[in-house]
Amino acid sequence: MELLKEKIRQQGEVKGKGILKVDSFLNHQLDVKLFEEMGKTFKAHFEGQGINKILTIETSGIAIATCVARNFDYCPVVFGKKYVSLNLDNDIYSSDVYSYTKQQAYKIMVSKKYINENDRVLIIDDFLANGKAVEALIDVVNQAGATLIGVGIAIEKGFQKGGDLIREQGIDLQSLAIIDQMSEEDGIVFRD
Amino acid sequence: MELLKEKIRQQGEVKGKGILKVDSFLNHQLDVKLFEEMGKTFKAHFEGQGINKILTIETSGIAIATCVARNFDYCPVVFGKKYVSLNLDNDIYSSDVYSYTKQQAYKIMVSKKYINENDRVLIIDDFLANGKAVEALIDVVNQAGATLIGVGIAIEKGFQKGGDLIREQGIDLQSLAIIDQMSEEDGIVFRD
Repeated sequence: MELLKEKIRQQGEVKGKGILKVDSFLNHQLDVKLFEEMGKTFKAHFEGQGINKILTIETSGIAIATCVARNFDYCPVVFGKKYVSLNLDNDIYSSDVYSYTKQQAYKIMVSKKYINENDRVLIIDDFLANGKAVEALIDVVNQAGATLIGVGIAIEKGFQKGGDLIREQGIDLQSLAIIDQMSEEDGIVFRD
Repeated sequence: MELLKEKIRQQGEVKGKGILKVDSFLNHQLDVKLFEEMGKTFKAHFEGQGINKILTIETSGIAIATCVARNFDYCPVVFGKKYVSLNLDNDIYSSDVYSYTKQQAYKIMVSKKYINENDRVLIIDDFLANGKAVEALIDVVNQAGATLIGVGIAIEKGFQKGGDLIREQGIDLQSLAIIDQMSEEDGIVFRD
């Protein structure tokens, strides 16, 4: 998606250790117009497959997923929770994740009320790197006996293994921008 | 907003100690169509005042804020972060919050890059109870020297003090549903 790549070129900041800062438009300040364009792109790729639920994970996936849902007949968005709250049910699917960005392990939790065997699920997230968060969402879909239609990602770090691991499972993974190389010195190289 | 009140009547569950569970449409599973109607309602109330930034707080405010932004010329949404991440700048505004729902204190943090004295800010959040989260967002707006246009809330617990505290400051607070009483036995009473 050229518009997203252009944004990354203009505003992305590469930091040491494989960190790409895109907080000016993707995960602190949010460019909703861009997210709506992402939604249309995901629609073009995934439509006609009966998607009736969008599954994402807090926090940064939520705004994108919200803009995706309107392209799939305003189907419900469900986000996996990382933090226990009094509001969360006891009857949940949970799966373990290790976050390299936050340098800690956590569980994602989804109430059993909001995903079931009748659901045809599109997973949405902002970043794919090692793929741990997406693997956990896939695990939740499988635990629920739901059907996974595909995975839509804004930015994939193609030099990390998550994308390959997911594609090897035969899952339809659509990343809007894939970065094959990046460094503070030489900048960002996108996959064609 | 009648549509929201109807949703609360149909799907909200009152639990002991003033907890209203609305996770089927507001803070775990998300009803994006409803959020877009909320966005239009906030537009009708706040338009014509030059709002150029929506400020919210992770997590549940983000989806609503995303749907509000499209009604204000797709202005940027900025969300206050509750958790430190490698992605967050060091140069931040921060303010302290105590969450009764999560029973813990935390800081909200907003990068100084994304709010400044030229901003005319609409604060959006899903719930207003004791008002601690909104007070912290107002504090951030003030620290930045930005102009606070108003506060838009989905559900206000009118029997807690947050709404009064904010209105007493002369702030334009617009809550789409105000609950004056609720209990497991007698259900929910809305303010007219």
